[in-house]
Amino acid sequence: MKKLDEILLKLERGEISAAEARGELSDISFADITHTKVDLDRRLRTGCGEVIYGAGKTVGQILEIAETLLKNESDVLATRLSEEAMESIKLAYPDAIINATARTASVRASRGKLPLLKGKIALLSAGTSDMPVAEEARVCAEFFGSKVECFYDCGVAGLHRLTSKIDEIRKARVVIAVAGMEGALASVVAGLVKVPVIAVPTSVGYGANFCGLAALLAMLNSCANGVSVVNIDNGFGAAYSAHLINVSSHG
Amino acid sequence: MKKLDEILLKLERGEISAAEARGELSDISFADITHTKVDLDRRLRTGCGEVIYGAGKTVGQILEIAETLLKNESDVLATRLSEEAMESIKLAYPDAIINATARTASVRASRGKLPLLKGKIALLSAGTSDMPVAEEARVCAEFFGSKVECFYDCGVAGLHRLTSKIDEIRKARVVIAVAGMEGALASVVAGLVKVPVIAVPTSVGYGANFCGLAALLAMLNSCANGVSVVNIDNGFGAAYSAHLINVSSHG
Amino acid sequence: MKKLDEILLKLERGEISAAEARGELSDISFADITHTKVDLDRRLRTGCGEVIYGAGKTVGQILEIAETLLKNESDVLATRLSEEAMESIKLAYPDAIINATARTASVRASRGKLPLLKGKIALLSAGTSDMPVAEEARVCAEFFGSKVECFYDCGVAGLHRLTSKIDEIRKARVVIAVAGMEGALASVVAGLVKVPVIAVPTSVGYGANFCGLAALLAMLNSCANGVSVVNIDNGFGAAYSAHLINVSSHG
Amino acid sequence: MKKLDEILLKLERGEISAAEARGELSDISFADITHTKVDLDRRLRTGCGEVIYGAGKTVGQILEIAETLLKNESDVLATRLSEEAMESIKLAYPDAIINATARTASVRASRGKLPLLKGKIALLSAGTSDMPVAEEARVCAEFFGSKVECFYDCGVAGLHRLTSKIDEIRKARVVIAVAGMEGALASVVAGLVKVPVIAVPTSVGYGANFCGLAALLAMLNSCANGVSVVNIDNGFGAAYSAHLINVSSHG
Amino acid sequence: MKKLDEILLKLERGEISAAEARGELSDISFADITHTKVDLDRRLRTGCGEVIYGAGKTVGQILEIAETLLKNESDVLATRLSEEAMESIKLAYPDAIINATARTASVRASRGKLPLLKGKIALLSAGTSDMPVAEEARVCAEFFGSKVECFYDCGVAGLHRLTSKIDEIRKARVVIAVAGMEGALASVVAGLVKVPVIAVPTSVGYGANFCGLAALLAMLNSCANGVSVVNIDNGFGAAYSAHLINVSSHG
Amino acid sequence: MKKLDEILLKLERGEISAAEARGELSDISFADITHTKVDLDRRLRTGCGEVIYGAGKTVGQILEIAETLLKNESDVLATRLSEEAMESIKLAYPDAIINATARTASVRASRGKLPLLKGKIALLSAGTSDMPVAEEARVCAEFFGSKVECFYDCGVAGLHRLTSKIDEIRKARVVIAVAGMEGALASVVAGLVKVPVIAVPTSVGYGANFCGLAALLAMLNSCANGVSVVNIDNGFGAAYSAHLINVSSHG
Amino acid sequence: MKKLDEILLKLERGEISAAEARGELSDISFADITHTKVDLDRRLRTGCGEVIYGAGKTVGQILEIAETLLKNESDVLATRLSEEAMESIKLAYPDAIINATARTASVRASRGKLPLLKGKIALLSAGTSDMPVAEEARVCAEFFGSKVECFYDCGVAGLHRLTSKIDEIRKARVVIAVAGMEGALASVVAGLVKVPVIAVPTSVGYGANFCGLAALLAMLNSCANGVSVVNIDNGFGAAYSAHLINVSSHG
Amino acid sequence: MKKLDEILLKLERGEISAAEARGELSDISFADITHTKVDLDRRLRTGCGEVIYGAGKTVGQILEIAETLLKNESDVLATRLSEEAMESIKLAYPDAIINATARTASVRASRGKLPLLKGKIALLSAGTSDMPVAEEARVCAEFFGSKVECFYDCGVAGLHRLTSKIDEIRKARVVIAVAGMEGALASVVAGLVKVPVIAVPTSVGYGANFCGLAALLAMLNSCANGVSVVNIDNGFGAAYSAHLINVSSHG
Repeated sequence: MKKLDEILLKLERGEISAAEARGELSDISFADITHTKVDLDRRLRTGCGEVIYGAGKTVGQILEIAETLLKNESDVLATRLSEEAMESIKLAYPDAIINATARTASVRASRGKLPLLKGKIALLSAGTSDMPVAEEARVCAEFFGSKVECFYDCGVAGLHRLTSKIDEIRKARVVIAVAGMEGALASVVAGLVKVPVIAVPTSVGYGANFCGLAALLAMLNSCANGVSVVNIDNGFGAAYSAHLINVSSHG
Repeated sequence: MKKLDEILLKLERGEISAAEARGELSDISFADITHTKVDLDRRLRTGCGEVIYGAGKTVGQILEIAETLLKNESDVLATRLSEEAMESIKLAYPDAIINATARTASVRASRGKLPLLKGKIALLSAGTSDMPVAEEARVCAEFFGSKVECFYDCGVAGLHRLTSKIDEIRKARVVIAVAGMEGALASVVAGLVKVPVIAVPTSVGYGANFCGLAALLAMLNSCANGVSVVNIDNGFGAAYSAHLINVSSHG
Repeated sequence: MKKLDEILLKLERGEISAAEARGELSDISFADITHTKVDLDRRLRTGCGEVIYGAGKTVGQILEIAETLLKNESDVLATRLSEEAMESIKLAYPDAIINATARTASVRASRGKLPLLKGKIALLSAGTSDMPVAEEARVCAEFFGSKVECFYDCGVAGLHRLTSKIDEIRKARVVIAVAGMEGALASVVAGLVKVPVIAVPTSVGYGANFCGLAALLAMLNSCANGVSVVNIDNGFGAAYSAHLINVSSHG
Repeated sequence: MKKLDEILLKLERGEISAAEARGELSDISFADITHTKVDLDRRLRTGCGEVIYGAGKTVGQILEIAETLLKNESDVLATRLSEEAMESIKLAYPDAIINATARTASVRASRGKLPLLKGKIALLSAGTSDMPVAEEARVCAEFFGSKVECFYDCGVAGLHRLTSKIDEIRKARVVIAVAGMEGALASVVAGLVKVPVIAVPTSVGYGANFCGLAALLAMLNSCANGVSVVNIDNGFGAAYSAHLINVSSHG
Repeated sequence: MKKLDEILLKLERGEISAAEARGELSDISFADITHTKVDLDRRLRTGCGEVIYGAGKTVGQILEIAETLLKNESDVLATRLSEEAMESIKLAYPDAIINATARTASVRASRGKLPLLKGKIALLSAGTSDMPVAEEARVCAEFFGSKVECFYDCGVAGLHRLTSKIDEIRKARVVIAVAGMEGALASVVAGLVKVPVIAVPTSVGYGANFCGLAALLAMLNSCANGVSVVNIDNGFGAAYSAHLINVSSHG
Repeated sequence: MKKLDEILLKLERGEISAAEARGELSDISFADITHTKVDLDRRLRTGCGEVIYGAGKTVGQILEIAETLLKNESDVLATRLSEEAMESIKLAYPDAIINATARTASVRASRGKLPLLKGKIALLSAGTSDMPVAEEARVCAEFFGSKVECFYDCGVAGLHRLTSKIDEIRKARVVIAVAGMEGALASVVAGLVKVPVIAVPTSVGYGANFCGLAALLAMLNSCANGVSVVNIDNGFGAAYSAHLINVSSHG
Repeated sequence: MKKLDEILLKLERGEISAAEARGELSDISFADITHTKVDLDRRLRTGCGEVIYGAGKTVGQILEIAETLLKNESDVLATRLSEEAMESIKLAYPDAIINATARTASVRASRGKLPLLKGKIALLSAGTSDMPVAEEARVCAEFFGSKVECFYDCGVAGLHRLTSKIDEIRKARVVIAVAGMEGALASVVAGLVKVPVIAVPTSVGYGANFCGLAALLAMLNSCANGVSVVNIDNGFGAAYSAHLINVSSHG
Repeated sequence: MKKLDEILLKLERGEISAAEARGELSDISFADITHTKVDLDRRLRTGCGEVIYGAGKTVGQILEIAETLLKNESDVLATRLSEEAMESIKLAYPDAIINATARTASVRASRGKLPLLKGKIALLSAGTSDMPVAEEARVCAEFFGSKVECFYDCGVAGLHRLTSKIDEIRKARVVIAVAGMEGALASVVAGLVKVPVIAVPTSVGYGANFCGLAALLAMLNSCANGVSVVNIDNGFGAAYSAHLINVSSHG
């Protein structure tokens, strides 16, 4: 809301009228392209730019939003993309980085490399089938500027796969635990580390998994402390929260 | 169905008529005391006698069923008893063994001590709050004739409480894992032993535990193999299945 | 955890340092092929080798895991395979045994025939539509080394289909009951036998079956004792538990 | 709607005006006692008089409705009564028949005995704990004029308790099957008889019974045909439907 | 169980031994064609022959069951058929009657026309979109031998569509009410007739219809009496129950 | 947000600084009494003053909020009050109007009578047991200034109770339909009137009513148009929406 | 029911007999085209003509209903159309207006332009992915004769997108708030306006959105007042209720 | 696992044998008091000591655990206490700090004051009824050593209550948002700050709140980023995660 303050200041100085102040508020902070109001102010307000959630949007809409963001010098990250959307983005922006497992695409507004944060995120997954969600988390966290170390397929059915890596995991500032089925990985790792655990339930599993409900409820009921939970299959959301924590640890 | 064969045999030998055979079938195998048909044949048929499920029965009904069983030389075990029911049983049968935590009562038809099976059941619980369910399981399994070793309060939040006991646990023929909240104990122990695990979800926990649904779904979705699940808070059911397995291992 | 003991022993004898002990723990018990940590220690630890859960894995990943297992002289069993995965496995391993109904594939590391256990599993299904789940159970139990006798399509709508076979069923060490719709088969058979019943709810049925929830809840609430339940459509899980019980009865 | 025809007829004959016709429609068929519109026309329209559903009504309201019905020469049946309501009715109407298990009260407007229908209803319950619901069904069906034969506590855990009575059950015109837990009784009996089965799920059972949901879903999914289902614990509803069928069989 | 009595009789007369009696029980009443035990005794036992539930069966299995039934002089009715199954049946049995809306096929074992019962079933549906379920009910009830009169698209949004037909509806022995969305049709019609109402919830409607759950719960909670409910979209089940009631009214 | 404009205006005129403007925003529009921020601006912003939701608040908190509102010349309406809270309010404010059925209390800041709106709300309830919710709606709507005409106990089991009143109902500007069980009243009345219907599901009914879920889903799925729904048992919410519509019809 | 009065009047005047009166009631108000009873009386009775709900209807049925309506001089609006249905309507009625995003088609019976109401509906959506539902609402409301102003993509993640438009929104007579995910838009806007808010939950979002359940429950639980809710994704229903309110504000 | 390393080191140095090493592992890290294994190692391992979850434990058990912790120089915090438990703790430890709203008790092992962290947690609640949960969060976070600033009763129905405080809130390192009903507070605040938001759904609200499910789902589906969620009413869990993040920001 830096801009609100600027406008109030200009008003105080008599540079604009109260009516003009009202008007400016509508214009400055988003770009209205009919179907979408692209939130250009978001990075200032919340620390990360707007990310395009691809599901339910047409390819045309996605490309227009991307264009608007790039024009305003915001980097572009799009998630939940269809095959067709990934191809169209690649065509439109040959520099775009596509991750077919994660179903993401990213385009940088500027060519310079982003400096990575020093602290790292430990990204654990319980099984190979959880990989699309885990990869979405990795791609997003790295896009925001966090370092990510992956520990895939270390579910609790073979506990030693986790405990043998625990020293490495403990060096992270925050842990992301991605697991389907009974989601026990989140509880077990939270009992072994001193940092916050962001748990991501996945929809992987047999019938009574009920599209991820089993893992979701399990993670919300973790008997170990320090676990908070994001939506089912929401690798992006976990990355976002984990990145904010990682940033915080540099503050 | 031994008795069916006897009746068919008598019929074959001409000792009874077909009509008489029909009649005998109604009489031999249960005692009809109006509100209840006490199943006297059950031990022969399924290996354990009928157990009185106390919930929803009046104290009067419970006492009548107990009396009928004892008259027929069956031992009595009653579960889910109210305070009032436990007191009334104690009054009627001073020899009765009451367990107030488990809410059970038992009366032996004969005075002789039951020989215990050699194999043992390892009974694990995740937390102190799970104790009523775990104790119901212990009381029932011992009543049936199994040896039970208890490992209480070894939930996965402090994994070493479990791993430090794992050698003892591995000596059992079957494991019962009682846990509320996220119920991860079942998965973790199943990944560490070679015997069947009977999982009992409990209704212990905060809101989204939904009266045990969280633990139930988690256990049904165990990523570790060899886990089968009984009803929420059903210590009795777990004891029954575990005892059958323990018996089987002596066969 | 035999290997843990070996390492501690070597450490005691001064053959390795404490740091080396730590290191060995990571290496010995699983093979890390990036996307998957193949659990080579599992047979020793839990009595059966790792089984490949095909759902959510790419064909490439499945083949790599299979290869890693075979290299380490573990037999391969894969479940929940797509058409494409079954074909690719057949192509890669002409000896592979494919079961299209069960959607499984198996490859033996060694050519010798496995000795079967003497005790048998009785595998009941309620209807013809439950066959894919029942067949998954059969294939898996036989792969592990159990003898399986099948009693298909004996649901309770025509009770005589079950009772006419009950003598055969009673000879088994453990019963698997596969049923959709109201899942009553599990309760009815459990009232007639002396051995543990592993119940498998299936997603077969009309609308309010809710993808197997009706049968799942029914089986968890069995009024007959000795029933424990695995996940919806989880023939594999039932086979695993039943096999452990069958093994136990030889111990 | 006999009365509608009468009014139309009077209108046709010029005995009343159209406006008067409108007016009469409001008055004839129910008695408005502020909080309640007592439906006096219901027996003519649907075959049975209005029954007072006691839950959520004050004792005062119940007594006023009863009084209104009796004044209009309708018999009174009230269900779901509190202790207090049962006592107040007994006080107000010493002739009232109270059933404390069923929580019902009935008062006859006339002293003459109702002639019973010849056909009978077979009323089965699975366990002793289901008795309050079964008794509600019995009381209501007898109140309406049906003969009822009770077969209590014949759940499928001991199948012979049911099969030994099957010949008697087959003589009924309709079967009511009351069961909690997994509710399998409905399916099993429906596979053995030629008449319609009205299934009543009860809220009896352990946790994952979810207040009767397990039995409800099971009964809706019956693999045996001829089963239709009423609400959980709704003995009254089952009695009503069964009585209509019984009446129909005399038509 | 007429055959049980015959066998007991032969045994009484010394015509067969007890062992032979046991043996005969397995053979007489169903035909075992590996994947299916075709229940040939069902018409005698429950009043209607076995109906083939097509969902989850292969076309081959369906044809084999049909053949077995016809060989045993049972008529064939199959429901929930795929396009492919309907075509294959037509090819195999050119006399087969296919109803593409209802997804059913029927083949008569004998050529003679079935005499229809005198009483009729009134079959109501709420909307045009409920037609596939309603047609399944019509086809099945007519197959069993009931007369059916259809009142389609008379949902409560336009009450006069129902009330204008009420005199016709009242002439039926039993009413089937098929409705999706809020399923109010069942309650409204039950308040206007004297016969039993079998309610069929359908999965027709917007999101919070939850695949028929909304209508199912509504129908189970009908404030009007005499309503019992079958599974979601289960036209067959409703037809079966309604036919039994219709038969009963001729007894 | 009139006050925002005033502050901006003062700022424009140089009467206050930008910093002072910020400060004023915190103070003007609510009164902070530690546990509660009483929203004094709400009537201006949304058309009705803040109403005290009594559930989960201590009696002390309720009285303090009431006092704060009255001090600021706002009328007081409190809902969901315990017995104790109603008594304490009566004691503190002898003028308070208490409705024990609705569990509400109101105190007017000024003595003058509120002018009623000319248009009226028709308030329908399905049964006597729905009265507490209906009365909450009546009390609230009248408090806000709407005229309310009540049509209680006119559920669809006796349709003539509704249709005989339909001309009166049609004169209202908006209809509130309060119903539990299957909630069909909302659909039926919406098919007969030209004005918006606000539907209130209640938790009245047998088991599968699931605390109002059945009626809630039914009302959301109304096949008749013009129905929108508020929370279960939320008479207050319905009154609020209906009053806004009634106000609107005077604009 | 104007026609009922006419018929009663004719009957009073002796112009028709009572029997004829009965007959006329069936004929006047709907057109029976076998599969559908087209409700021609609906505009008179409820203020808007019948709208064709396309889901679950064949293209042939839709075209026949459209034809019937047009023949009776009713305008046609059809929703939830498949691609094929939209094309067929365009072919049959080249004047038809198709909206592919909203999946609607409309055909006017007369060529004259409908006069728009003066009051307007403010139509808000939270995100671009909610557009199909929002567009359905817009098309329907405009079809009925309301003016609609759209404020798309103003979800609460960027609150300024909403607050910057709030003055425009406040000029509407009623607000429609379309939102998926957590549906907070409805609560936030209701706290800022004086008019009724019709909330439409959408099925847009990640896993634990459960097909719109999350937004549905959130909207039903709005802490801000004046919100009533329609079914998930039901843009049509919201438009209908909002239009009735808009009409009311002109009355 | 510092202690593991010490033991390995002693083993390496030959100070203990391998068998002794095994033994020590059991003893060092928890105190076994039969019903409970008090986890003394937890602070070292996870950063905070074990907290006593009072629900489901007897007063005696709680006191014994407290005593064991204090003996081992661990501070005591107990949550979810009954009235009786709070009184007994106060009696046993007169220094204990009891918070009756939060239902917590704490006892310090040492008398010295804990140094507070510099960063602060902003604790928001939506309404006065959410106070017990919010207070549990405040008490716990302060016990762990975090500074907490409370912003109570700033739900989105009166948005200015939140926005007027936003500058203060932005100074925190992490935000806890406690809200029942539709839980929109979490989304709205997350759209306005740059730090992680831990959302706590509460069970406050009307019927379709379903004991907190509505708020839980809403928070999991937040359209604003940076929100992660703990269990319903779990103030303790939120405090724990928030404290870990706050600690991290000092690292």
